[in-house]
Amino acid sequence: MPELYAWEPEGPVIKTDIPGPVAIEEAGRLDKVFDIRSINMLTDYSKSFGNYIADPDGNILLDVYAQIASIPIGYNNPALIKAAQSPEMINGLINRPALGNFPPHDWDNVLKTGILKVAPKGLNQVFTAMAGSDANETAYKAAFMWKRQHERGGAHVEFTDSEIENAMNNQSIKMSILSFRAAFHGRLFGSLSTTRSKPIHKLDIPAFDWPQATFPKVKYPLEENVEYNREAEQKSLDEVEHLIKTWHLPPCAVIVEPIQSEGGDNHASADFFRKLRLLTRKHNVLLIIDEVQTGVGATGKFWAHEHWDLPEPPDMVTFSKKAQTAGYYYGNLELRPNKPYRQFNTWMGDPARALVFRAVIEEIERLGLVENTNKVGNYLYGKLEELGKKYPGQFNDLRGKGMGTFIAFDNPQRDAILKLAKKFGVNIGGSGASAVRLRPMLIFQEKHADILIDRLEKIINALK
Amino acid sequence: MPELYAWEPEGPVIKTDIPGPVAIEEAGRLDKVFDIRSINMLTDYSKSFGNYIADPDGNILLDVYAQIASIPIGYNNPALIKAAQSPEMINGLINRPALGNFPPHDWDNVLKTGILKVAPKGLNQVFTAMAGSDANETAYKAAFMWKRQHERGGAHVEFTDSEIENAMNNQSIKMSILSFRAAFHGRLFGSLSTTRSKPIHKLDIPAFDWPQATFPKVKYPLEENVEYNREAEQKSLDEVEHLIKTWHLPPCAVIVEPIQSEGGDNHASADFFRKLRLLTRKHNVLLIIDEVQTGVGATGKFWAHEHWDLPEPPDMVTFSKKAQTAGYYYGNLELRPNKPYRQFNTWMGDPARALVFRAVIEEIERLGLVENTNKVGNYLYGKLEELGKKYPGQFNDLRGKGMGTFIAFDNPQRDAILKLAKKFGVNIGGSGASAVRLRPMLIFQEKHADILIDRLEKIINALK
Repeated sequence: MPELYAWEPEGPVIKTDIPGPVAIEEAGRLDKVFDIRSINMLTDYSKSFGNYIADPDGNILLDVYAQIASIPIGYNNPALIKAAQSPEMINGLINRPALGNFPPHDWDNVLKTGILKVAPKGLNQVFTAMAGSDANETAYKAAFMWKRQHERGGAHVEFTDSEIENAMNNQSIKMSILSFRAAFHGRLFGSLSTTRSKPIHKLDIPAFDWPQATFPKVKYPLEENVEYNREAEQKSLDEVEHLIKTWHLPPCAVIVEPIQSEGGDNHASADFFRKLRLLTRKHNVLLIIDEVQTGVGATGKFWAHEHWDLPEPPDMVTFSKKAQTAGYYYGNLELRPNKPYRQFNTWMGDPARALVFRAVIEEIERLGLVENTNKVGNYLYGKLEELGKKYPGQFNDLRGKGMGTFIAFDNPQRDAILKLAKKFGVNIGGSGASAVRLRPMLIFQEKHADILIDRLEKIINALK
Repeated sequence: MPELYAWEPEGPVIKTDIPGPVAIEEAGRLDKVFDIRSINMLTDYSKSFGNYIADPDGNILLDVYAQIASIPIGYNNPALIKAAQSPEMINGLINRPALGNFPPHDWDNVLKTGILKVAPKGLNQVFTAMAGSDANETAYKAAFMWKRQHERGGAHVEFTDSEIENAMNNQSIKMSILSFRAAFHGRLFGSLSTTRSKPIHKLDIPAFDWPQATFPKVKYPLEENVEYNREAEQKSLDEVEHLIKTWHLPPCAVIVEPIQSEGGDNHASADFFRKLRLLTRKHNVLLIIDEVQTGVGATGKFWAHEHWDLPEPPDMVTFSKKAQTAGYYYGNLELRPNKPYRQFNTWMGDPARALVFRAVIEEIERLGLVENTNKVGNYLYGKLEELGKKYPGQFNDLRGKGMGTFIAFDNPQRDAILKLAKKFGVNIGGSGASAVRLRPMLIFQEKHADILIDRLEKIINALK
């Protein structure tokens, strides 16, 4: 693989503590009008390039967190600059359409050369949205309408007066979406009802009484614990089936992440997901794959669920983050509600952001970045394995083998590692209770992996 | 007022039926991958200028619907083209930040020269969002957390184990958001629970069992029915108070639109809203004003609630549409949750769209467009009154006097009017059961009003 991006710095540059004096002053100003208590690092995007993120004090860090796994092909990517300057982009930015009412006359072309060019196999339709949360929620809405339509007897059957009256009085539909323990699917009211990651996400917010199944409690490395894991996965599948059959609000859909990301990088085998697909089909329940964090190349496939060789496609796949836009893919036309305006909102996405995704896709294809992620991921995983042998107890439950750069490990001093990492010139994120999650961009190369490994070793030694 | 925009066409141009042959062909292609049953008109944005919207068949219509009231200062506005080409915009587009974790170091400046420059009186804080629905839902979340914190005894009181367990098990918080009959606040699960406009929005979608009060059933013109309306408004206020006191899930907030827009352009007096402010304060319930459709100048004030001369500010004001971005304003720092990450998501808005809003604000100020809307609105209202006298029964319940161009009337053949309007070169929207709602852009001038009046008269005659 040739040098992908010559426009980034040689390596990290640390000039001050982080936050430095300028960042402290600027954050103080911002705090007066904007809640900044979740700030990780004030950023100077004009000085961030490729895999490197800069702060206003002149510090430059290798970024393997990438805006919570949402920067696809590097900061200030020349290909994106070019796309941003195009007449099409300017048009999309300044003439923001209500896509459901007044779509641009060439919207089909924008979709086909962009969002739909990378549609998962079997899913050639899209409903566009703004971000991960509403992508999932509109998918849920499609699921509820689909299920009720089946119950009602088909698309041609009209709503009854009492259905209409109940709807206007919020008399709740007796159905649910089933999700997994430790799942993260967003933080609006419907999506948050399926999010089961951390209490801080959910405290004080009303939620629907929807069911949760245990995500398989597997042992790592997966390939050394096949028998044990198969049992854990079967237990989880049995629980899903039990909930489908018995929950007081029957699920019309199951939503699952290919790898539980916010919840701590929890994996399961391809076999588990194949069986989940068959199980949901058996009970006439939809399967929604949430690829908001796993999608767009990071796992060494464009979509993580391509690793599974499913017997038939999922019913819907949701996307956001690295796509820079959002929505859900589907294939079955029954998932289009039976009347217009049932799935609708003013903007229904953002053409400007759809054009950014198109430019991202073009760059991924031009440079073979999915293959790059696969190759560099294997390299990085091998180096981490070595480090794990050298420092026992420091790289626990290393996971993500063969899943591109979507790699994580647990460490008892996780929070201290993340904090100290900045001193050593790397920006790293965590997930779950004790996981260090690596989420480099798709342009991450072996030379960056070497820097990361070097710094991780220094951090571990500094924490001793 | 000088000629605002010399770059728009002289008037409508109708060359074909709408949809014409090109639109039909292009829509057919789009239909294969994107649900188009709610299409109003396929649009060629590159040929739309100022108040005029173009289709791919060369038809050009005076647009008084403006992307469901969301285009602020005209298609292909030169000031926005300039903003779109700025290095800052390109930066915002291609380096999309996770605003809560890694805000741009000059984010406070972007806010202060943009979104916060026009903050409603008393509300100097903002939480940024993606669109109207999540703006409202994050405001609801802030309300729930605020109320529970009060009940808990303050920001310093820690969550109990049982609170944490209940949250993780979706054991629903026993509180609600109160909204009004015929209200529209969005279509995700929480916002849809407060939306009470049309069954088609709500059918088959689970909703929280939250209360709705009757929006005052006033008579128009408001100024000729003061006594009657005061009684209707008092009845509504009494109902609000009754629901606050008795609903099984007590409301922690009331949300209301200054003018119910999707619900049919329903007005109430300033006195009603002043009393609603006092009533909610009395019961320690928050008041959220949903200015998604009414905000940003269309009513002859920047925010419609400025018409009311409130005794104290609302607790939160939500915005989107003409702002081209979204969020909620607040002033009371108690509305910042007591811990970080309680109100959080990956993107928390979009800096590129915040920069578009800033450019919109600059243009509004440079050209005095709020005053323009006020003046042209009065002119248009007068002309519609005249038309109403000339055609009895055709312009019923004309409303929006003194509310800029935010004007509506009822017509028994509303749907036929909207359809026929395109033949006569105007693009008009409806709301509620029988309202024609006028939502021109802020650059709408008397000459456009003259065209609109001329076409409305032609349409009425054609329908006779």
